Amino acid sequence: MVLVVRGELRLTAGKAAVQVAHAAVMLVEAAGPRERALLEAWRDQGQKKIALTAATLEDLQRLERAARARGLPTILVRDAGLTEVPPGTVTCLGIGPARSSDVDPITGELPLL
Amino acid sequence: MVLVVRGELRLTAGKAAVQVAHAAVMLVEAAGPRERALLEAWRDQGQKKIALTAATLEDLQRLERAARARGLPTILVRDAGLTEVPPGTVTCLGIGPARSSDVDPITGELPLL
Repeated sequence: MVLVVRGELRLTAGKAAVQVAHAAVMLVEAAGPRERALLEAWRDQGQKKIALTAATLEDLQRLERAARARGLPTILVRDAGLTEVPPGTVTCLGIGPARSSDVDPITGELPLL
Repeated sequence: MVLVVRGELRLTAGKAAVQVAHAAVMLVEAAGPRERALLEAWRDQGQKKIALTAATLEDLQRLERAARARGLPTILVRDAGLTEVPPGTVTCLGIGPARSSDVDPITGELPLL
Protein backbone atom coordinates (compact mmCIF):
# COMPACT_ATOMS: atom_id res chain seq x y z
CA MET A 1 0.00 0.00 0.00
CA VAL A 2 1.39 3.36 -1.05
CA LEU A 3 0.15 6.66 0.34
CA VAL A 4 1.16 9.85 -1.46
CA VAL A 5 0.75 13.17 0.37
CA ARG A 6 0.25 16.40 -1.59
CA GLY A 7 3.41 18.30 -0.82
CA GLU A 8 2.36 21.80 -1.89
CA LEU A 9 -0.07 21.95 1.05
CA ARG A 10 2.88 21.91 3.45
CA LEU A 11 0.89 20.05 6.07
CA THR A 12 2.32 19.56 9.54
CA ALA A 13 3.66 16.09 10.32
CA GLY A 14 0.56 15.32 12.35
CA LYS A 15 -1.89 16.48 9.71
CA ALA A 16 -0.01 14.57 7.00
CA ALA A 17 -0.04 11.45 9.19
CA VAL A 18 -3.80 11.71 9.57
CA GLN A 19 -4.29 11.98 5.79
CA VAL A 20 -2.13 8.89 5.28
CA ALA A 21 -4.21 7.05 7.89
CA HIS A 22 -7.46 8.17 6.23
CA ALA A 23 -6.22 6.77 2.91
CA ALA A 24 -5.13 3.46 4.45
CA VAL A 25 -8.45 2.90 6.25
CA MET A 26 -10.41 3.88 3.14
CA LEU A 27 -8.46 1.45 0.95
CA VAL A 28 -9.00 -1.40 3.41
CA GLU A 29 -12.71 -0.68 3.64
CA ALA A 30 -13.11 -0.28 -0.11
CA ALA A 31 -11.36 -3.55 -0.95
CA GLY A 32 -13.80 -5.70 -2.91
CA PRO A 33 -13.84 -9.40 -3.72
CA ARG A 34 -11.10 -8.93 -6.34
CA GLU A 35 -8.75 -7.51 -3.71
CA ARG A 36 -9.52 -9.94 -0.87
CA ALA A 37 -6.56 -12.24 -1.52
CA LEU A 38 -4.19 -9.30 -1.86
CA LEU A 39 -5.57 -7.78 1.33
CA GLU A 40 -5.08 -11.04 3.24
CA ALA A 41 -1.51 -11.37 1.99
CA TRP A 42 -0.86 -7.74 2.90
CA ARG A 43 -2.16 -8.30 6.44
CA ASP A 44 -0.12 -11.47 6.86
CA GLN A 45 3.02 -9.62 5.82
CA GLY A 46 2.58 -6.84 8.39
CA GLN A 47 0.37 -4.37 6.50
CA LYS A 48 3.29 -2.80 4.67
CA LYS A 49 2.70 0.89 3.97
CA ILE A 50 4.96 3.45 2.35
CA ALA A 51 4.35 7.19 2.69
CA LEU A 52 5.61 9.27 -0.22
CA THR A 53 5.06 12.80 -1.42
CA ALA A 54 4.23 14.44 -4.74
CA ALA A 55 4.05 18.17 -5.23
CA THR A 56 0.70 19.09 -6.71
CA LEU A 57 -2.91 18.02 -7.15
CA GLU A 58 -2.14 17.39 -10.81
CA ASP A 59 0.65 15.02 -9.78
CA LEU A 60 -1.75 13.06 -7.57
CA GLN A 61 -4.32 12.89 -10.37
CA ARG A 62 -1.73 11.74 -12.88
CA LEU A 63 -0.53 9.02 -10.49
CA GLU A 64 -4.12 7.98 -9.84
CA ARG A 65 -4.81 7.64 -13.57
CA ALA A 66 -1.66 5.56 -14.01
CA ALA A 67 -2.66 3.26 -11.14
CA ARG A 68 -6.20 2.83 -12.41
CA ALA A 69 -4.92 2.10 -15.89
CA ARG A 70 -3.09 -0.85 -14.32
CA GLY A 71 -6.25 -1.96 -12.54
CA LEU A 72 -5.01 -1.00 -9.07
CA PRO A 73 -7.40 0.25 -6.35
CA THR A 74 -7.02 3.96 -5.62
CA ILE A 75 -8.55 6.51 -3.31
CA LEU A 76 -8.26 10.30 -3.08
CA VAL A 77 -8.63 11.74 0.42
CA ARG A 78 -10.60 14.95 0.72
CA ASP A 79 -10.05 16.66 4.05
CA ALA A 80 -12.92 17.92 6.14
CA GLY A 81 -10.79 21.06 6.32
CA LEU A 82 -11.40 22.08 9.88
CA THR A 83 -7.84 23.16 10.50
CA GLU A 84 -5.04 23.62 7.96
CA VAL A 85 -6.81 23.51 4.56
CA PRO A 86 -10.18 24.51 3.03
CA PRO A 87 -12.93 21.86 3.20
CA GLY A 88 -12.79 19.35 0.35
CA THR A 89 -9.11 19.85 -0.36
CA VAL A 90 -7.53 16.74 -1.86
CA THR A 91 -4.67 15.88 0.50
CA CYS A 92 -3.53 12.36 -0.28
CA LEU A 93 -3.67 9.55 -2.83
CA GLY A 94 -3.78 5.95 -1.68
CA ILE A 95 -2.96 2.98 -3.94
CA GLY A 96 -3.48 -0.63 -2.93
CA PRO A 97 -3.56 -3.26 -1.77
CA ALA A 98 -1.30 -4.23 -4.64
CA ARG A 99 1.92 -6.04 -5.37
CA SER A 100 5.08 -3.93 -5.09
CA SER A 101 5.91 -4.95 -8.64
CA ASP A 102 2.66 -3.33 -9.81
CA VAL A 103 3.01 -0.09 -7.83
CA ASP A 104 6.73 0.55 -8.12
CA PRO A 105 6.62 1.52 -11.80
CA ILE A 106 4.12 4.24 -10.87
CA THR A 107 5.46 5.64 -7.60
CA GLY A 108 9.03 4.34 -7.48
CA GLU A 109 10.56 7.72 -8.30
CA LEU A 110 8.71 9.71 -5.63
CA PRO A 111 10.57 10.87 -2.49
CA LEU A 112 9.65 9.56 0.96
CA LEU A 113 7.33 11.78 2.99
CA MET B 1 -9.67 8.11 17.21
CA VAL B 2 -6.41 9.27 18.76
CA LEU B 3 -3.02 8.08 17.57
CA VAL B 4 -0.01 8.77 19.80
CA VAL B 5 3.46 8.45 18.29
CA ARG B 6 6.47 7.64 20.51
CA GLY B 7 8.51 10.82 20.31
CA GLU B 8 11.84 9.53 21.61
CA LEU B 9 12.24 7.42 18.45
CA ARG B 10 12.54 10.61 16.38
CA LEU B 11 10.91 8.97 13.38
CA THR B 12 10.84 10.76 10.05
CA ALA B 13 7.49 12.28 9.07
CA GLY B 14 6.87 9.44 6.64
CA LYS B 15 7.71 6.70 9.11
CA ALA B 16 5.55 8.34 11.79
CA ALA B 17 2.68 8.64 9.31
CA VAL B 18 2.89 4.93 8.56
CA GLN B 19 2.76 4.05 12.27
CA VAL B 20 -0.33 6.25 12.67
CA ALA B 21 -1.92 4.50 9.70
CA HIS B 22 -1.04 1.05 11.11
CA ALA B 23 -2.76 1.99 14.38
CA ALA B 24 -5.88 3.34 12.64
CA VAL B 25 -6.30 0.25 10.44
CA MET B 26 -5.71 -2.05 13.42
CA LEU B 27 -8.31 -0.26 15.53
CA VAL B 28 -10.90 -0.44 12.74
CA GLU B 29 -10.22 -4.14 12.19
CA ALA B 30 -10.24 -4.94 15.92
CA ALA B 31 -13.54 -3.18 16.59
CA GLY B 32 -15.93 -5.72 18.05
CA PRO B 33 -19.70 -5.74 18.49
CA ARG B 34 -19.46 -3.30 21.39
CA GLU B 35 -17.73 -0.74 19.18
CA ARG B 36 -19.85 -1.13 16.03
CA ALA B 37 -22.14 1.82 16.76
CA LEU B 38 -19.21 4.05 17.65
CA LEU B 39 -17.39 2.96 14.50
CA GLU B 40 -20.42 3.75 12.34
CA ALA B 41 -20.80 7.17 13.92
CA TRP B 42 -17.10 7.80 13.49
CA ARG B 43 -17.30 6.89 9.78
CA ASP B 44 -20.36 9.06 9.25
CA GLN B 45 -18.55 12.01 10.79
CA GLY B 46 -15.53 11.76 8.49
CA GLN B 47 -13.32 9.29 10.38
CA LYS B 48 -11.89 11.95 12.67
CA LYS B 49 -8.32 11.18 13.68
CA ILE B 50 -5.90 13.16 15.77
CA ALA B 51 -2.15 12.46 15.75
CA LEU B 52 -0.37 13.36 18.98
CA THR B 53 3.02 12.57 20.49
CA ALA B 54 4.26 11.34 23.85
CA ALA B 55 7.92 10.99 24.70
CA THR B 56 8.59 7.47 25.92
CA LEU B 57 7.41 3.88 25.85
CA GLU B 58 6.41 4.29 29.49
CA ASP B 59 4.23 7.25 28.51
CA LEU B 60 2.46 5.16 25.87
CA GLN B 61 1.95 2.30 28.34
CA ARG B 62 0.58 4.66 31.00
CA LEU B 63 -1.85 6.19 28.48
CA GLU B 64 -2.87 2.71 27.33
CA ARG B 65 -3.63 1.66 30.91
CA ALA B 66 -5.68 4.81 31.47
CA ALA B 67 -7.68 4.21 28.30
CA ARG B 68 -8.29 0.56 29.12
CA ALA B 69 -9.38 1.50 32.63
CA ARG B 70 -12.11 3.57 30.95
CA GLY B 71 -13.09 0.64 28.76
CA LEU B 72 -11.73 2.20 25.55
CA PRO B 73 -10.26 0.08 22.73
CA THR B 74 -6.48 0.41 22.45
CA ILE B 75 -3.73 -0.97 20.27
CA LEU B 76 0.07 -0.77 20.46
CA VAL B 77 1.85 -0.82 17.11
CA ARG B 78 5.05 -2.86 16.93
CA ASP B 79 7.11 -2.02 13.89
CA ALA B 80 8.54 -4.68 11.62
CA GLY B 81 11.71 -2.66 12.03
CA LEU B 82 13.09 -2.92 8.56
CA THR B 83 14.30 0.65 8.41
CA GLU B 84 14.55 3.15 11.27
CA VAL B 85 14.04 1.06 14.44
CA PRO B 86 14.81 -2.49 15.68
CA PRO B 87 12.12 -5.14 14.95
CA GLY B 88 9.33 -5.22 17.52
CA THR B 89 9.83 -1.63 18.68
CA VAL B 90 6.61 -0.11 20.00
CA THR B 91 6.07 2.99 17.88
CA CYS B 92 2.51 4.17 18.41
CA LEU B 93 -0.56 3.85 20.63
CA GLY B 94 -4.03 3.97 19.10
CA ILE B 95 -7.19 4.66 21.11
CA GLY B 96 -10.68 4.36 19.69
CA PRO B 97 -13.17 4.49 18.24
CA ALA B 98 -14.41 6.47 21.24
CA ARG B 99 -16.21 9.66 22.10
CA SER B 100 -14.02 12.75 22.38
CA SER B 101 -15.40 13.25 25.87
CA ASP B 102 -13.97 9.84 26.85
CA VAL B 103 -10.54 10.29 25.27
CA ASP B 104 -9.85 13.94 26.02
CA PRO B 105 -9.29 13.41 29.75
CA ILE B 106 -6.53 10.93 28.85
CA THR B 107 -4.76 12.55 25.91
CA GLY B 108 -5.99 16.16 26.03
CA GLU B 109 -2.67 17.51 27.34
CA LEU B 110 -0.44 15.88 24.72
CA PRO B 111 1.10 17.99 21.93
CA LEU B 112 0.14 17.47 18.29
CA LEU B 113 2.50 15.31 16.26
